[in-house]
Amino acid sequence: MHERGMLIVLSGPSGVGKGTVRQAMLQDDFRDFQYSVSMTTRKPRPGEKDGIDYYFRTKEQFEQEIADGQMLEYAKYVDNYYGTPLKYVNQTLDAGRDVLLEIEVKGAMQVRAKCPDGVFIFLTPPDLVALKHRLVGRGTDDIATINKRIQQAAQEIKMMENYDYAVVNDEVPLAVKRIERIIESEHLRVPRVIDKYRNMVN
Amino acid sequence: MHERGMLIVLSGPSGVGKGTVRQAMLQDDFRDFQYSVSMTTRKPRPGEKDGIDYYFRTKEQFEQEIADGQMLEYAKYVDNYYGTPLKYVNQTLDAGRDVLLEIEVKGAMQVRAKCPDGVFIFLTPPDLVALKHRLVGRGTDDIATINKRIQQAAQEIKMMENYDYAVVNDEVPLAVKRIERIIESEHLRVPRVIDKYRNMVN
Repeated sequence: MHERGMLIVLSGPSGVGKGTVRQAMLQDDFRDFQYSVSMTTRKPRPGEKDGIDYYFRTKEQFEQEIADGQMLEYAKYVDNYYGTPLKYVNQTLDAGRDVLLEIEVKGAMQVRAKCPDGVFIFLTPPDLVALKHRLVGRGTDDIATINKRIQQAAQEIKMMENYDYAVVNDEVPLAVKRIERIIESEHLRVPRVIDKYRNMVN
Repeated sequence: MHERGMLIVLSGPSGVGKGTVRQAMLQDDFRDFQYSVSMTTRKPRPGEKDGIDYYFRTKEQFEQEIADGQMLEYAKYVDNYYGTPLKYVNQTLDAGRDVLLEIEVKGAMQVRAKCPDGVFIFLTPPDLVALKHRLVGRGTDDIATINKRIQQAAQEIKMMENYDYAVVNDEVPLAVKRIERIIESEHLRVPRVIDKYRNMVN
């Protein structure tokens, strides 16, 4: 009998750098978890591979997965579905290995409802000005889009109260270290280990 | 306005090595907290100094502190009182600095009732055999006393469920590192930082 793995959910407002932090975590030596590849209906970008960057599916296939109850969470952004297939997550957790999800705020709340013992980490910009600069720096959006995104981010920061931890993404290596410490500490939380100790005394 | 400090309570069964871990934490570079010196009615051992190792008081003085509501927690062991003066703890927390208490299980439960937002860490032996060896290694107790202590430890391990974290004291430097990570992670918990972020958005 091994312990069940821990579900780690990394989320946060649009533009905060979730993907960058996640990629840095995957490259770090610490990396004692499996990353759960998301499913999407958007077209692959150059270099992206099915099953590695995303599971690329048609709209019809994705909607069938939803209908079959096979999605842990999903949401639609700009006419495309994004979501987390349930099966891989459960198999990995059952094998005693931690699973990392990097998902949007709406999806994270769906996971919270289904997996209350997960670790929910909210990645946050140092302040909204930094978020604005980052969005402008991308150079892909006009001012109206940027302002809309900032208002959305303010709303999403209010959603922080549904998370366990808030990690500032001031510098990616620092954010990664904070998240790794959270993962280590969470493994020491009494509700996660009490049964092991009860067995030790008996 | 600075944030209030965090109360860190290190406890665990008799003989597990709480004092050794605490001393190692005080000598570590991390040491971003104040240690709260306990008060006792036992006599100073050679080399122990009042206000550093303990506040040494008479039985009458200690009982007056209890009567005046000046003790955060206290207990009587082998005819001597041990406890934590409330004033220093509150002053340090109000100044925005973390406070470390290293206390017995009974005292920790008194603190838990008064300070539910503290971080309660239970130091535990790798197994009861290790505890037994450690007690025998001390060479100060007979077999009956040792067996009694082990039964007591089994009871105290059951008390682990009242703590937030369980840290195995297999090696002191490892235990210290685990506790330091817990302290760092706890500072990122949403209920501790949400107000700061609410202010940021407004």
